[in-house]
Amino acid sequence: IKPTDMEKWRGKIAVVTGASAGIGADVVRQFAKKGIHVIGLARRPEKIEEIAKEVGVTSGKIHAYRCDVSNKDSIDAAFKWIEEKFKVVNILINNAGLGHQTSILANEDNDEKLKQVIDTNFTGLVRVTRSAFKLMNKSDNYGMIININSIVGHITPFPSDGNSRSNVYAGTKFAVTAVTEVLRQELVCMKNTKIRISSLSPGVVETDFFHSGEFVPKSARIGDLMPALKASDITDSILFLLSTPYNVNVTEITVRPTGEIM
Amino acid sequence: IKPTDMEKWRGKIAVVTGASAGIGADVVRQFAKKGIHVIGLARRPEKIEEIAKEVGVTSGKIHAYRCDVSNKDSIDAAFKWIEEKFKVVNILINNAGLGHQTSILANEDNDEKLKQVIDTNFTGLVRVTRSAFKLMNKSDNYGMIININSIVGHITPFPSDGNSRSNVYAGTKFAVTAVTEVLRQELVCMKNTKIRISSLSPGVVETDFFHSGEFVPKSARIGDLMPALKASDITDSILFLLSTPYNVNVTEITVRPTGEIM
Amino acid sequence: IKPTDMEKWRGKIAVVTGASAGIGADVVRQFAKKGIHVIGLARRPEKIEEIAKEVGVTSGKIHAYRCDVSNKDSIDAAFKWIEEKFKVVNILINNAGLGHQTSILANEDNDEKLKQVIDTNFTGLVRVTRSAFKLMNKSDNYGMIININSIVGHITPFPSDGNSRSNVYAGTKFAVTAVTEVLRQELVCMKNTKIRISSLSPGVVETDFFHSGEFVPKSARIGDLMPALKASDITDSILFLLSTPYNVNVTEITVRPTGEIM
Amino acid sequence: IKPTDMEKWRGKIAVVTGASAGIGADVVRQFAKKGIHVIGLARRPEKIEEIAKEVGVTSGKIHAYRCDVSNKDSIDAAFKWIEEKFKVVNILINNAGLGHQTSILANEDNDEKLKQVIDTNFTGLVRVTRSAFKLMNKSDNYGMIININSIVGHITPFPSDGNSRSNVYAGTKFAVTAVTEVLRQELVCMKNTKIRISSLSPGVVETDFFHSGEFVPKSARIGDLMPALKASDITDSILFLLSTPYNVNVTEITVRPTGEIM
Ligand SMILES: NC(=O)c1ccc[n+]([C@@H]2O[C@H](COP(=O)([O-])OP(=O)(O)OC[C@H]3O[C@@H](n4cnc5c(N)ncnc54)[C@H](OP(=O)(O)O)[C@@H]3O)[C@@H](O)[C@H]2O)c1
Ligand SMILES: NC(=O)c1ccc[n+]([C@@H]2O[C@H](COP(=O)([O-])OP(=O)(O)OC[C@H]3O[C@@H](n4cnc5c(N)ncnc54)[C@H](OP(=O)(O)O)[C@@H]3O)[C@@H](O)[C@H]2O)c1
Ligand SMILES: NC(=O)c1ccc[n+]([C@@H]2O[C@H](COP(=O)([O-])OP(=O)(O)OC[C@H]3O[C@@H](n4cnc5c(N)ncnc54)[C@H](OP(=O)(O)O)[C@@H]3O)[C@@H](O)[C@H]2O)c1
Ligand SMILES: NC(=O)c1ccc[n+]([C@@H]2O[C@H](COP(=O)([O-])OP(=O)(O)OC[C@H]3O[C@@H](n4cnc5c(N)ncnc54)[C@H](OP(=O)(O)O)[C@@H]3O)[C@@H](O)[C@H]2O)c1
Repeated sequence: IKPTDMEKWRGKIAVVTGASAGIGADVVRQFAKKGIHVIGLARRPEKIEEIAKEVGVTSGKIHAYRCDVSNKDSIDAAFKWIEEKFKVVNILINNAGLGHQTSILANEDNDEKLKQVIDTNFTGLVRVTRSAFKLMNKSDNYGMIININSIVGHITPFPSDGNSRSNVYAGTKFAVTAVTEVLRQELVCMKNTKIRISSLSPGVVETDFFHSGEFVPKSARIGDLMPALKASDITDSILFLLSTPYNVNVTEITVRPTGEIM
Repeated sequence: IKPTDMEKWRGKIAVVTGASAGIGADVVRQFAKKGIHVIGLARRPEKIEEIAKEVGVTSGKIHAYRCDVSNKDSIDAAFKWIEEKFKVVNILINNAGLGHQTSILANEDNDEKLKQVIDTNFTGLVRVTRSAFKLMNKSDNYGMIININSIVGHITPFPSDGNSRSNVYAGTKFAVTAVTEVLRQELVCMKNTKIRISSLSPGVVETDFFHSGEFVPKSARIGDLMPALKASDITDSILFLLSTPYNVNVTEITVRPTGEIM
Repeated sequence: IKPTDMEKWRGKIAVVTGASAGIGADVVRQFAKKGIHVIGLARRPEKIEEIAKEVGVTSGKIHAYRCDVSNKDSIDAAFKWIEEKFKVVNILINNAGLGHQTSILANEDNDEKLKQVIDTNFTGLVRVTRSAFKLMNKSDNYGMIININSIVGHITPFPSDGNSRSNVYAGTKFAVTAVTEVLRQELVCMKNTKIRISSLSPGVVETDFFHSGEFVPKSARIGDLMPALKASDITDSILFLLSTPYNVNVTEITVRPTGEIM
Repeated sequence: IKPTDMEKWRGKIAVVTGASAGIGADVVRQFAKKGIHVIGLARRPEKIEEIAKEVGVTSGKIHAYRCDVSNKDSIDAAFKWIEEKFKVVNILINNAGLGHQTSILANEDNDEKLKQVIDTNFTGLVRVTRSAFKLMNKSDNYGMIININSIVGHITPFPSDGNSRSNVYAGTKFAVTAVTEVLRQELVCMKNTKIRISSLSPGVVETDFFHSGEFVPKSARIGDLMPALKASDITDSILFLLSTPYNVNVTEITVRPTGEIM
C-alpha cells in the first residue's frame, strides 16, 4: 500500500455536514464506495437516506441524522448519537453552508437570512469542529478536518453586474479562512500531529446553492450561465487531501472551473 | 474652511458603539470637543455618563444609551430611541468588540464565549450598520462609517508563546475586512457616494481589552509587556478619516505601535 | 506644538522619487510649503526645476537630481551627491513607478517593458530604500519611509472589460506589500524605533500614469472615465502619516476615490 | 481511462526549471517514470544528466539543457533549442528559485544577491512562462503551468528568532501569487481554456535551498531542526494537479508539513 493512497481510511468513520445535496451528497456517495463509513448530517436527513438507497450496497455504510448546524442543541444531540453509536470520528467534512441573495443595506427585513448565513457557515462550523475533535482525539487513528470554504473566503470581487447581493457570505468564508489557520495553530500548539486540517475553496460548482439562495431562478442551470465545476470535482480534491501521507498538511486548495471569469 | 478639515462634522450626529471604555470612550471625548454630538452605546451606559461628566461642557453633546450589540432587540430599541430623538445619524463608529482567552479545541464549555465574540464583533456590527445606514441615508448630509477591525483581521500570526488562545477572534475580524468591502460595494452599486466606509485596523492598544478578555492579569499593564498604542492614537486616525474630503475614501488604515513584534 | 503635527519635520531633508510628475510632483510642492527641504529624483530633473520655479520662494528648498531608479549606478550616483550635499536624509517617499499596457502572453517583444516595470517598481524601490536608510540612520533625527503601493498590491481584480493588460504591475505592487512589511520587521529586529515605514495604496489617481503607460489615449482625462483622486489627495495622506507621533506606525493606508468600481 | 488520471500526459513534453536539485530533480524523476518526456533546465545541467543516469530506462526521456533563468539570452537560447528539438511544450514547472540569507538594511554589499533573487524568482518565471506558452499554444494538446510559490508568497511571518534575514524573497513570491492570477486572467480573456495555471506554495521542504542560501550550515539537516516535507511530497501535489480533468483549475495549493510552527 502506497503511503499516499486512500486505503488508510477504509473502515474509518467520517462525518459530513450538509450531506443532503450538492457537494456533501457527492462526498457521501464516494466515501461509501471507498469503504469509509459516513454519517451524513443535514436538516433533511431523508435526502441522505435516498442517497443511501440509490448507492446500494457499498463497503462503507451510510448513516443519516437530522442536524441543523446553526443550532447548538441540534449539534449536541447529533454528536451524542454519534458518540453512542460510533464512539469515534476520523474524518470531518465541514460542508454545510448557504448564501441568500439580498443586500445588507438595500433590503428590509432580511435579518433572519443574514443571521442564518453567519450561524451556519461560521458559528456552526466552529461548533461542529469542536464536537468532532473530541471524538477524533479519542480514536487511536489519524484524523482529518476539511473545511469547505470558497473563492470569496479570500477575495471580494466587485459584482460584475453592478448588483451586490451576497451580503455576509464572503464575511463568513473569510472567517473560515482565519479559523482554519487558527485551528491548525491550536493543533500545533497542542503538539497534536495526528489530526490535520485543510481549507478547500471552490469556485462556482453546479449544485442547489444558487437556487436555494435565490441567486438564479430554479429553471436556470448555473453551468449554462458560466463555467462551473461538478460536485464530484470537489470530491476528487477531498479524496486527494485524504490520500496525502500523515506528515503532509495541505492547508489550502482552491479549485476553480477552467475559464472562470472572476 | 479647508475641505480636508473636521469643521464639516460640527453639529452632526455620531453613534459610537462600545463607548464605555477604551477606544470608544476616547472617541466620545474627542468628538464632543470637536463639536460633534455623540450617542454612546454600550452595555454599561453609566460609564458613558461618567465620561460626559468628566468632559464637562463641550460644543458637542454626549448622550448615553444602553445597548448590547450582540442582541438584535437591544439594537432595535437603541435605534428607535435615536430616530425619535435625533432623526438622523451622520457618523457611525463600529467599535464595540471583545475577545476571550480560550482555545476552541482545548477548552471545555466555552461555547457562550465564542458565540458572544461572533455575535458582537461580526453579527452585531452588521446589524448596527444596517440600522445606522437608514438614519444616515435620511440625512441631507454626508455620512461616514468606520469599522474598528484589527491586525488579525488581515493576518493570523502564529502565537509566539506557543499558546493559541484567541479562538474565533481573528475569524470575526477577517469577517469585518470582507464585510467592510462588501458594504462599500453595496454603496457603489446603489450609486450612493454620500456615505463612505472604512476599516481601521489597530495593532495592540492599551485598553481594557486584554483584561476583560483575561489575556493578561488585571494587575498587568499591556504597555509594560509590549509596545502599545494609546486609545487616543486610534482616535487621531479616526479624526483623519473624518477630515478627508468627500471624494476620498480611505478604505483601510492599519495603525500599529512602532516596534510591534508581530 | 502638538505631537501629532507636521512641525517636527520642518527643516528636515526629504527624498522623493518620481518627483517630476503626478503624485511625486505634488508631494514636492507641499513639502516645500511645509518647510521640508526636498530632493526630487527622476529621469527628467528639468521638470522638477520647473516645479521649483512655479512654487517660488518657500521655507523648504527644492532640489532636483537626475536619477533612473531602475539603474543601480544612477541610484548610487544620486545618493553620493545627496550625502555630500545634505549629509542625512529624514524622509523617503518611494513614489517612482510605472505600468505598461501589454499582455505577458498575448503580446510579442515586450520584454523590455516588463523588465522596466519590475526594475523600477520593485528592485528600484528596494535599492533606493537601502541607500536612503544609511543616510537616515546617520541622522540624529527620526525617519519615515513611505512606499507608494497600489490597490493592486493587495488584490488582482478581474479586468471588467475582459481585457487583461496590466501584466507584471500587480506583481511588483504585491512585492511592495511584502517588502514593506519585511523592512518593518528588519527595523524591529534591529531595535530601530527611530525609523518608521508605511505602505500607501492608492486607487485611481488622475496623473500621467495611464497616459505614459498607454492605458488611455493622451486625449482622454481619466477622471472623465471613472472616479479618480487628485494627486493632492495622496499628498494629504502622506502629510497625515508624517503628522502621527513617533510611537505610531501606520503600516498600511489604502486611499480610493469614493465610488470606485473595482 | 479515468478522466482524473495521469495517462493523458504520457508521451507529452514537460519543461522543469531548476531541475538539478531539490524539488525540480524529484519532479524530473517522477515525470520520466510516468512516461512524460522532461526537459530539465538549470545552471548545472550535468546534475540533471546524473539524475537521468540514476533513473535509468524509463518510458519518459530526460533531457538536460543549461539555462540560467535570471538571464534572458540564456532563456531564449534554451527555448530555441527546445523548439527545434521538441516543437511543442505541454507542461511547464516554474520551479527554479532561491533565497539568500541577508538583510536589506543591515548588510552591506548584498545588491547582487537581492537582484539575483528578483531576477530568478520573479522576472525569470515571467520570461520562461512567456517562452513556454508560445510552444504550448502551438501544440494541439492541453497545457499546464505550475508555479512553485511559497508559504511566504501569502504571508510575511515575523521571524520567530528575532532575526529578519529573508529580504526580498517574500516579495518575489508575493509577486508570483499575483502574476499567477494575472496569467490565469490573461488566458481567460484570450478564451484559452486549453492551458491551465496553478500556484503551488510549499512550507518547509528538505532540499538544498537552506544550504545554498546559507540559512543553515551545510552540516545541518533542516528536517532535524523543524518539521519538513520531502521533495517527493511536492511532486505528489504536482501529479495531483496534472491528474485533474481539463475543466478543473486548481489555482492554489498550499502544502505544509504537519505541525509547522509558522
Ligand atoms: N456551489 C458553489 O458554487 C459553491 C462555491 C463555493 C463554496 N461552496 C460551499 O460549498 C458548501 C456546500 O454547498 P453546495 O454548493 O453543495 O450547496 P447545496 O447543494 O445547496 O447544499 C448545501 C448543503 O448544506 C446543507 N445545509 C444548509 N444549511 C444547513 C444547516 N443549517 N444545517 C445542516 N445542513 C445545512 C443542506 O442541507 P439541508 O438543506 O438538508 O439542511 C445541503 O445539504 C457550502 O459550504 C458552500 O458555501 C459552494
Ligand atoms: N485593544 C487592542 O489592542 C485592540 C486591537 C485591535 C482591535 N481592537 C478593537 O477595538 C475595539 C474596542 O476595543 P478596546 O480595545 O477599546 O477594548 P475595551 O477597552 O475592552 O472596550 C470595549 C468596548 O466594547 C464594548 N462592548 C463589548 N461588548 C459589547 C456589546 N455586546 N454591546 C455593546 N458594547 C460592547 C464595551 O462596553 P460594555 O462592556 O459597557 O458593553 C467597551 O466599551 C474592539 O472592536 C476591539 O476588537 C482592540
Ligand atoms: N495614478 C494612479 O492611478 C496610481 C494608482 C496606484 C498607484 N500609483 C503609483 O503612484 C506612483 C506615482 O505614479 P503617478 O500616478 O504619479 O504617475 P506619473 O504621473 O506617471 O508619475 C510617475 C513618476 O515616476 C517617475 N519615474 C518613472 N520611472 C522612473 C525611473 N525609472 N526612475 C525615476 N523616476 C521614474 C516619473 O518621472 P520621470 O519620467 O521623469 O523619470 C514620474 O515622476 C507610482 O508608483 C504608481 O505605481 C498610481
Ligand atoms: N525548500 C523549501 O523549503 C521551499 C519552500 C517554499 C518554496 N520553495 C521553492 O521551491 C523551488 C525549488 O527550490 P528547492 O527547495 O528545490 O531548492 P534547491 O534544492 O536549492 O533547488 C533549487 C533549484 O533551482 C535552480 N536554480 C536556482 N537558480 C537558478 C537559475 N538562475 N536558473 C536556473 N535554475 C536555477 C537550481 O539549479 P542550479 O543551481 O543548477 O541552477 C536548483 O535546481 C524554489 O522556487 C523555492 O523558492 C522551496
